[in-house]
Amino acid sequence: MPDIEIGSGKSSRRGYGLGDVAIVPSRRTRDPEDVDLSFVLDGFTFQLPLVAAASDAVVSPRSAVEIARLGGLAVLNLEGLWTRYEDPEVVLDEIGSLPAAVATARLQELYAEPVREELIKQRIRQIGDSGVVTCAALSPQRTVQFAKAVVEAELDLLVIQGTVVSAEHVSRRPEPLNLKRFIREYDIPVIVGGCASYPAALHLMRTGAVAVLVGVGTGSASTTWDVLGLGAPHATAIADAAGARSRHLEETGVYVHVIADGGMSTGGDIAKAIACGADAVMIGAPLAAAEEAPGRRRYWEMAAAHPSLPRGSLVEAPLRGTLAEVLCGPAHDSDGAVNLFGALRAAMAMCGYASVKEMHKADVTVAG
Amino acid sequence: MPDIEIGSGKSSRRGYGLGDVAIVPSRRTRDPEDVDLSFVLDGFTFQLPLVAAASDAVVSPRSAVEIARLGGLAVLNLEGLWTRYEDPEVVLDEIGSLPAAVATARLQELYAEPVREELIKQRIRQIGDSGVVTCAALSPQRTVQFAKAVVEAELDLLVIQGTVVSAEHVSRRPEPLNLKRFIREYDIPVIVGGCASYPAALHLMRTGAVAVLVGVGTGSASTTWDVLGLGAPHATAIADAAGARSRHLEETGVYVHVIADGGMSTGGDIAKAIACGADAVMIGAPLAAAEEAPGRRRYWEMAAAHPSLPRGSLVEAPLRGTLAEVLCGPAHDSDGAVNLFGALRAAMAMCGYASVKEMHKADVTVAG
Amino acid sequence: MPDIEIGSGKSSRRGYGLGDVAIVPSRRTRDPEDVDLSFVLDGFTFQLPLVAAASDAVVSPRSAVEIARLGGLAVLNLEGLWTRYEDPEVVLDEIGSLPAAVATARLQELYAEPVREELIKQRIRQIGDSGVVTCAALSPQRTVQFAKAVVEAELDLLVIQGTVVSAEHVSRRPEPLNLKRFIREYDIPVIVGGCASYPAALHLMRTGAVAVLVGVGTGSASTTWDVLGLGAPHATAIADAAGARSRHLEETGVYVHVIADGGMSTGGDIAKAIACGADAVMIGAPLAAAEEAPGRRRYWEMAAAHPSLPRGSLVEAPLRGTLAEVLCGPAHDSDGAVNLFGALRAAMAMCGYASVKEMHKADVTVAG
Amino acid sequence: MPDIEIGSGKSSRRGYGLGDVAIVPSRRTRDPEDVDLSFVLDGFTFQLPLVAAASDAVVSPRSAVEIARLGGLAVLNLEGLWTRYEDPEVVLDEIGSLPAAVATARLQELYAEPVREELIKQRIRQIGDSGVVTCAALSPQRTVQFAKAVVEAELDLLVIQGTVVSAEHVSRRPEPLNLKRFIREYDIPVIVGGCASYPAALHLMRTGAVAVLVGVGTGSASTTWDVLGLGAPHATAIADAAGARSRHLEETGVYVHVIADGGMSTGGDIAKAIACGADAVMIGAPLAAAEEAPGRRRYWEMAAAHPSLPRGSLVEAPLRGTLAEVLCGPAHDSDGAVNLFGALRAAMAMCGYASVKEMHKADVTVAG
Repeated sequence: MPDIEIGSGKSSRRGYGLGDVAIVPSRRTRDPEDVDLSFVLDGFTFQLPLVAAASDAVVSPRSAVEIARLGGLAVLNLEGLWTRYEDPEVVLDEIGSLPAAVATARLQELYAEPVREELIKQRIRQIGDSGVVTCAALSPQRTVQFAKAVVEAELDLLVIQGTVVSAEHVSRRPEPLNLKRFIREYDIPVIVGGCASYPAALHLMRTGAVAVLVGVGTGSASTTWDVLGLGAPHATAIADAAGARSRHLEETGVYVHVIADGGMSTGGDIAKAIACGADAVMIGAPLAAAEEAPGRRRYWEMAAAHPSLPRGSLVEAPLRGTLAEVLCGPAHDSDGAVNLFGALRAAMAMCGYASVKEMHKADVTVAG
Repeated sequence: MPDIEIGSGKSSRRGYGLGDVAIVPSRRTRDPEDVDLSFVLDGFTFQLPLVAAASDAVVSPRSAVEIARLGGLAVLNLEGLWTRYEDPEVVLDEIGSLPAAVATARLQELYAEPVREELIKQRIRQIGDSGVVTCAALSPQRTVQFAKAVVEAELDLLVIQGTVVSAEHVSRRPEPLNLKRFIREYDIPVIVGGCASYPAALHLMRTGAVAVLVGVGTGSASTTWDVLGLGAPHATAIADAAGARSRHLEETGVYVHVIADGGMSTGGDIAKAIACGADAVMIGAPLAAAEEAPGRRRYWEMAAAHPSLPRGSLVEAPLRGTLAEVLCGPAHDSDGAVNLFGALRAAMAMCGYASVKEMHKADVTVAG
Repeated sequence: MPDIEIGSGKSSRRGYGLGDVAIVPSRRTRDPEDVDLSFVLDGFTFQLPLVAAASDAVVSPRSAVEIARLGGLAVLNLEGLWTRYEDPEVVLDEIGSLPAAVATARLQELYAEPVREELIKQRIRQIGDSGVVTCAALSPQRTVQFAKAVVEAELDLLVIQGTVVSAEHVSRRPEPLNLKRFIREYDIPVIVGGCASYPAALHLMRTGAVAVLVGVGTGSASTTWDVLGLGAPHATAIADAAGARSRHLEETGVYVHVIADGGMSTGGDIAKAIACGADAVMIGAPLAAAEEAPGRRRYWEMAAAHPSLPRGSLVEAPLRGTLAEVLCGPAHDSDGAVNLFGALRAAMAMCGYASVKEMHKADVTVAG
Repeated sequence: MPDIEIGSGKSSRRGYGLGDVAIVPSRRTRDPEDVDLSFVLDGFTFQLPLVAAASDAVVSPRSAVEIARLGGLAVLNLEGLWTRYEDPEVVLDEIGSLPAAVATARLQELYAEPVREELIKQRIRQIGDSGVVTCAALSPQRTVQFAKAVVEAELDLLVIQGTVVSAEHVSRRPEPLNLKRFIREYDIPVIVGGCASYPAALHLMRTGAVAVLVGVGTGSASTTWDVLGLGAPHATAIADAAGARSRHLEETGVYVHVIADGGMSTGGDIAKAIACGADAVMIGAPLAAAEEAPGRRRYWEMAAAHPSLPRGSLVEAPLRGTLAEVLCGPAHDSDGAVNLFGALRAAMAMCGYASVKEMHKADVTVAG
């Protein structure tokens, strides 16, 4: 790995964002209809390598069902509005018209309402009743507290997600979450993240998670890089996690999926994330632009409402079409924000690859 | 070739765009009038190393003749408006006044009209009747369908062009285009592209094509990079194709021309493309700014009208002068958009090179 | 150290700014409340690794006390308005409403008023009377002249600061400041800077200073890079100074603190400076946005008033909260300008580090 | 020299502009008044290392005298307005109010007026009568034609200048300029350029020139890079020419001066050019902002009026002060455009260097 010297004794490494790279077509092409986009996770098969982000602007119990029907996996935020309010639609209406100047302060107040265990169960069951795969997210801080309710609601897949989640959390508190023990003993398969490096991904894989979320500070509405100075260029983070996946597979025979999280706004971004090694992508902002999105044409991440250190903005997400159109087209604009997975299919066809795993072999070039 | 590591196990390579490089004058200069710009392709001689892009905004049967008279080669799009409409002028008028918000959707509708075989023949003959070299383009998908009509119309040069065209297309369909067999058996010399790498160019050269078009996602009105994530920095793609040309020449004794396609808007861009190894340049948008261009002061590429995944914009192309002025001057502005080939001549003279092939030796520097 | 060749015979080196890097979380996390931010300098303990810049816009005798109470160290400029005017509030009022066009010229006039020795003593005592640690700055040019007054006023820490300060000043004048002799013989511990390279920092450390200020041309309101062409990308300068600190520690057993000076506007910038090796940060502009700042919602550096070669602007510093909020939150915006040290604490926790010195080990990546 | 591969078989090299670099202060400082800025060229001594560009916007017979009195060397353009018009003031008035849209076309007409030999003599004598060193420029194309007149007018220094000037001009014309023979046989010392590489500079030095102008496409009002694709990042070009100077000195014992030409707009730019190896700087646009400049608050280069391929713009040059102020201060703004040589002096002092030749040793860093 070529080293960079920042200064005397401080080594570093050049990281690459998805915007720094492009996929170079190979010497082979293929018919788009012969391309298979499916994604299999712990026995569940999804027609699209899509995970909808645990943002209240994107996933409600209702939109979760629609996303599932279109072939993706939607993650409901169990510490969001749907588990804090009996009727979040009123709150969503208010957020939809918040002036920018007070947006963060008001989000902080709205998310100060306590999370209610019975709402957690109710929301999960509401999705499950539709017969689709259910998936929802907790923060590491509250996983232990709500784990039992989640099991009782018969969730299919649990996401444990934070800005940074590690396999080795040091704490003087009485009972911090021991991720490895929790996952081993828990009845529901777990997806865990964010992480952004080879060792962090590898250690998360070793906890027994079925997939890791890769990305720190990558979200389009995130301000983590500015606020905390933390981040990792996404193409590099994904490729590093893919490397950890290979090593973990060699060591254990288990293939832990790499889900690229955040910062992808076009089909091209998705294609590049997969070319860098992702098995699937977690996207938020592009879906907030769909008709069925609960976010009232706005997008925000959970960290935007942090009580003392908010790390995200409330951004506009102008209507671009139905969920079906945003995901699978047809597009009637040329900016790449609609028909995201039709674009992925076309890109794979133009490079001659027939499946997501084959696409991992694609050549990428670094552009200036 | 120095490798870049994107991340664990994912290697890459730095690519350079034409904007990343500049030509460094050598220690020799030359009189501009002693510079020879001619370009010889399969027995046809052109005074300028110019191929006009197969865009309805640039090449009509009439403008094709004018471009030929000025020393270039114009490519008529056989799947464009001229082969779909008896009278495309009305359609061009409408496109000329389309509001940006609905441009893509309306282009999609206008290009949904079927291509008519008799119009293909008629348009080719219309150009041929003027006594100039005729050249026209088909997509790989429809080449087989219209190949016979094209021969009957006695076309001089056929261009088979797509966003990405490979020598090895994989398909489960009954009869996909086998490029190698087609070109060997066809009565008309073929120019083929786009491609953007050494192996892709080499394999296209091995099909028997007389020239390859080099460039993926390079066009100024193209959004391929955003929509599909595909692309290749142009200076690198051209140099790679030039390397493939050398190898093919060594292996077969045949010199297949490299035509840099797209993204050049000034004489300086053209000079740099040639310094990187191009034998000629295919340009579109700069010619749409000529008085005789059919595009009504607008420019768009074929992919802008794709029915489900449009990959191009309808951009303004304000009037800059007659075709003669745009190509050979004089210029009365200093931005480099007029007198494109006068500029190429001057640049070659200031570097001491007497011909396009000599200019391939020019030193280029990478600027920050 | 990898060399760059600028041109024939002129070697150079790539430097990195704080904006070029990001901190990559490690495979460990930690509870924020277990993070220790304290900074110990020559026996004085500060709860925050914060030095407030010697700008009249930030440090007055009154705000110095408030900054000290919040855990930082404030540096009063002894050649600023407080030692030139009996009542600087009137002057500050005028500066607060200076139109941009005449700002520099008027600042030059206002700072042309002579520095008065009795005011030096009076201002230092005024701060000391509050029982907090006192710290104030002189330029190398006037250190000898005012050194005695400073001692008499019983200052705790003296800062000798200029755009560039070296341990080896060459002069034909009768008695230039010999920094090494001065510091050895002086009764007050000295912080000295700016410097921006390994050898410059090392030689300043050898003068006996307790800390060095690292940064040339880094301040957000500074125009030193444009005016003088001098500068050093800050991440590299800090890492180099940290390297010099290690060498000096090995040679002498003395740990001289590295204080990153200027150009940090968010908590993320501060975290990165510390990850690169800083023991503390000197910040100005972000504090000018605090309610208690004397600068009337504006910020300027001393060099902005240089009589013949001004090197700084008078910039706006819109109100962001109280000093307590700017330093320790809570923040109600997501741009990182408020809760600077809460952000540092969170960043350290997310990387698993428990102290500033541990944070020096953080991985940083270079982003595009 | 580390190579870059643009693509297969096309090598290149990274070049650095002055904006890519910064000077890193060393571990020594010096009093500004001990810095010597003088520049000696073929027996003539100038107090400042300043050559005023041969632009009609900067050098008239009158301003030439003023520049000389302030310590610099001014170059009158012998193919500009002063040798085409009896009374150029009227023409300058018109240029001063030309609307941007027609500027280039009108400049082309104004400069189509023929150059008159008697005016060449008259203008040179007019400057010489003031007792200052006289210097004027011809293009290589017309040097032979006017060489005799220039000698008769007793010019002190001749500049032979073009966008690119080489020591080896190839031509089929009867009598092209043989630079080497011309300079050897001519009675007046010659400064020649532009050039932008080691070999080009070396060969120009071997013609017997006393100085070479280094820079192609560097001028702030130049569009050579866009129009022709020619250019060379300036820091690299200067360092390469300085390397050629060393080799030529070793081979012949003769020190040929390197004059960095164009693209410097602040004192910092000048300091960086000198740190990269320049003996002096040729500047234009910054001087057009002086009260005494003939350009009516505008700046343009000779190539802006090229009859068929103009390569420069007519740019605004708002008043910044008298020539004395622009060159030697005091400045009352902080953007570095005034007190250019006071800034150079300060920069050299802060780096501890006492002369221009010592400043060649300054450390430079490449910033992101």
